[in-house]
This record gives sequence, C-alpha cells and structure tokens, in this order.
Amino acid sequence: MPLDYEKVKNWPIPDSVHSYTRRDTMLYALGVGAATQNPPEDPQFVLEKGLKALPTMAVVLAGGDFWLADPAAGIDLARLLHGEQFLRLHKPLPPEGTLVGKHRVEEIFDKGADKGAVLILNRKLHDQATGDLVAEVAMSIFLRGNGGFGGRADGQPIPHAVPTDRAPDASLDLVTRPEQAALYRLAGADPNPIHVDAAMARRAGFERPILHGLCSYGVAGRAVLKLLCNNDPARLRRLDLRFASPVYPGETLRTQVWRQGPGRAAFQVRVVERDLLVLNNGLAEFDEHPQ
Amino acid sequence: MPLDYEKVKNWPIPDSVHSYTRRDTMLYALGVGAATQNPPEDPQFVLEKGLKALPTMAVVLAGGDFWLADPAAGIDLARLLHGEQFLRLHKPLPPEGTLVGKHRVEEIFDKGADKGAVLILNRKLHDQATGDLVAEVAMSIFLRGNGGFGGRADGQPIPHAVPTDRAPDASLDLVTRPEQAALYRLAGADPNPIHVDAAMARRAGFERPILHGLCSYGVAGRAVLKLLCNNDPARLRRLDLRFASPVYPGETLRTQVWRQGPGRAAFQVRVVERDLLVLNNGLAEFDEHPQ
Repeated sequence: MPLDYEKVKNWPIPDSVHSYTRRDTMLYALGVGAATQNPPEDPQFVLEKGLKALPTMAVVLAGGDFWLADPAAGIDLARLLHGEQFLRLHKPLPPEGTLVGKHRVEEIFDKGADKGAVLILNRKLHDQATGDLVAEVAMSIFLRGNGGFGGRADGQPIPHAVPTDRAPDASLDLVTRPEQAALYRLAGADPNPIHVDAAMARRAGFERPILHGLCSYGVAGRAVLKLLCNNDPARLRRLDLRFASPVYPGETLRTQVWRQGPGRAAFQVRVVERDLLVLNNGLAEFDEHPQ
Repeated sequence: MPLDYEKVKNWPIPDSVHSYTRRDTMLYALGVGAATQNPPEDPQFVLEKGLKALPTMAVVLAGGDFWLADPAAGIDLARLLHGEQFLRLHKPLPPEGTLVGKHRVEEIFDKGADKGAVLILNRKLHDQATGDLVAEVAMSIFLRGNGGFGGRADGQPIPHAVPTDRAPDASLDLVTRPEQAALYRLAGADPNPIHVDAAMARRAGFERPILHGLCSYGVAGRAVLKLLCNNDPARLRRLDLRFASPVYPGETLRTQVWRQGPGRAAFQVRVVERDLLVLNNGLAEFDEHPQ
C-alpha cells in the first residue's frame, strides 16, 4: 500500500533517553566479536581498565521505540529491509552515560509501486550531561510494500563507489562465532527472532537465521579502526555502508579498504567462506593522526 | 597470620538483595557457554521464549560484598583459594526476580599454621516476592595464610568419592571459547583480573589467565542437566564439587557421571586437551522424573 507521505514524513517521534553502563559497553564489544583470545586482543574495548566505547555502538543507543510498527504508519513490516547505515561521530562516545536521541524522518523517496519506498531516518545523539552533540546516526529503510505514493524518486544519498580498478590497500579478516547472534541480540538490544529461530528465518525468506546487519556493521567498524585509525576510536569520524547480502553467524568477515586521500577511504566486506560481498559502498572518514 | 576465630566466625554479614533481569539470565547462560551454534542448541536458556534459568546461576546471585577483603577480618587474600562449591536447589530459580541472601560463616577448620584454614561460607537465597527459600549456596574457602589459630581440624565436609573401579555411565564434552572469561566476568559479575590479564595471572602463580572456577562449575552443571535431568533445570536438586586444577579459556570440558542409586550420581570433569582432572568429587542429586 502506498504510504501517506505527509503523515510519515512528519511523524512526531519523541526524544529517546538511553542510559548505558560500562558493562553494556563491554558487552556491546563482545557482541561484535571484539574478543577471540585470552587475554583479549583489544582490552580497551572489553575490560574496565581504560575502557573505550567502540564508536559503532552509537547505532544501538537511544534508538527509541520502533514507531514504524505503529499500524497508523501504514508500513508493510514484512517487506521492510534495512538498506544502509550511516554514522558521523563528533566526539568520542563515552564509555558510560546518558544520551538523548532526537529523531526525524529526513526524506522518503518513491521508487514506484512495484519497487517500494526508501525512508531515511536520522537521529542526533546528545550527551545529556553536557548537551554536546556526540553523534549522528542515520539509516535508509527500504519499504518494498509502500511505494507508488507519488513522491520524488531522485535525490537519494548516492552510495559511495568502491574502486574496481585496483586492489585494496589493506585487508583484515575478523571471525564471528556461531553464537554471535545469540550474544549480539542482548548486546545490541535487538531481539528479532529471524536471527536465532530457524522457522522465523525461513518465513522471512532466509535459508537459516542470519546475523544482525548491525553486528556485521560493528565488525566492519572494528576492522576500519584497526586498518585506518591505529585502533583509536577517537579518530573515526564517519562510517557509512550498504547492506548487500546476509551474513551467517560463524562466518569470517574480510574488510578491504582503499585509501582515497587524507582521512578518507572506501571499504567493503566479504564473507571469506562463501567469497561473497556482504557490505558494500563503505565510506570511512577519520583523523590521520591522534588529536 | 592465624585468624581470630571468634571474630570471623561471628562476622555480621548483612543480608544482600539482588535483582536480576531476563537479560542477565540469558547472559549468564552464554557466559557458561550455553550457545555454540545458531540456532542455539538450548534455546530455553538463552532466548526469551520459555526462558528458564540455569540452576547454577544461583551461585552468582545475592553474593553480597566481599567482606573477607575487610582488613579487620585479617585474611591473607593473596593466599585465598576457592576450594569447593556446594548448591542445593529447593525451587526452580526464577528467570527474573529479586533474591535476598542471608549469609553465615558455617565453620572454620584449622589445618595448622603450615597448611592454613578452611572457611565454610553459607548463604540462603529467598525469593523476595514470596519469601520462599529457593536455594542454598555454600563454598569452602582455603585460607592458606591463616591456619594455626588453635581451632578444630576435623569435621570438614567429606568430599564425595568418585568411583575408581568402573568406567563412567555417561560422558559429555562441552567446549568453552577463548573469550569465555571475558564474557563470564560480565555474566557472573566477577571482574578479578587474573582471568583476563597475563601479568596479574602470573603474579598469582598461573602460567596464563585462567577461566573462572564458577564458569567451569556452570559448564559442569549444564553437562549434568543434559546427562541426568533430560536438560530440565527443575529436576536438579544438588550440585557439589571440588576445584582440582585451573581451566584455561578455550578448553573442552569432559563431564563424566557415575549413577549411584535413584536421583544420585558422582561426577568429575577433565580437560580433554590436557587429559587433566579439573573438577573432582562431584555429587549431583536430581529428580529421576519431572515433577
């Protein structure tokens, strides 16, 4: 059913307040596979001493209620897909604190009744204690069942092109565990059963339960930190990508980066076991040196 | 230094109140390795739907403050060892709730100035909502630096003998992950650095960081549930054992059980990779059939 543009575009999304602890921050890091050895290879993300938050944790903070599920919004939830994820970091994410999320529907594009609509949802995360803008999180959501409402088709953010004429400058393989989805769903507060239930996954059109897209996103973020930021989370400024194909828990994710001038790189992620592109159109921006 | 028997025996330990959530219960199960596949092999312990608490979680609930660290108690903490763990279950542990722990020093045995003291610490866990006694948790703590205070040496609980004249009736191998300690420390609320820090582990006399004893205990509990209780946590009544040797994260734990009459079995746990006995003198009591 075509969506009601004015209604959805102007949906009154209340601010969301999210307090999180150091334990939550360590758990998020474990949820995106940040420890695979003992002692942990990246203690600053999983142990109390000198704890730093992984910047990608911003995408699971202060997300608020899933208002798109409100029947009044008229969204065909069964045909909804998370298409792209965008993140800009203005300050290092505190390892504990309270963030206030201020949400808005940035735009809704109409790809036609047969293709669907693309909704861009944006939230600004402010530190409640200081008022500082910490991060901006956005995502594009593909509403395959809601196109043809007579809206504009053009103007969508253009996916960042990954070079095809040269080999990547660097590459890193990071493993996930078979139980990664069971852990990530607690760490990232996403209990969607398609990630852990065979019947629900099949009903959604998957062969078996798939890893959370945002878990793969977190793994890619860890790789980008290591490959481009000397593993210093304060240096990451931007991390955008498009979800190309599902990942299964237990697969190895190979992140490949192409430097494109100071503080800027393209990246993509492949599943090693299936030699399949899973995260595409990656764009990372970062400080070349510590501040 | 010999301890002050009257002072420690009569230490006024305040009641402890511990509220825990379903998320905590699922995380505890993941902390003791309850998911190694996707979909999880034991969904009832790691997913919301029909969630049940692993009975061994009782040992990390309402433990209260670590009063033995109070300098006034005169305990030589560097020479303290967790010797044995005891658990009796009176009711199934709720998957979420608030428990009140009522603590007492049951006895302190004197093994001599050269050997040390053995302190038996007991706590009863009551459901705050109903007042029901849910579980009794006890442990023996070996205080190697505090013997010779002139107390009694005899009367200690006798470790349960594991049959040596016959092969076990059943056996089950369960894996741990290299990152098991990093996860268990959050799940079981035990941040002791000897489990994740190489230097701290060496200082305590270990070659490398060791897995939490109570994590191995939880793995053994899972094996006992599967081997003797048809994986039904409501059927476990008692789980006692002695810590014989440290486990390293990532090792495989082989639990062997010997049935000893209705609802009763001995068990022990070996590390498969090193063919080493790590948990000894296991005693499990259980209902032979569901209630």
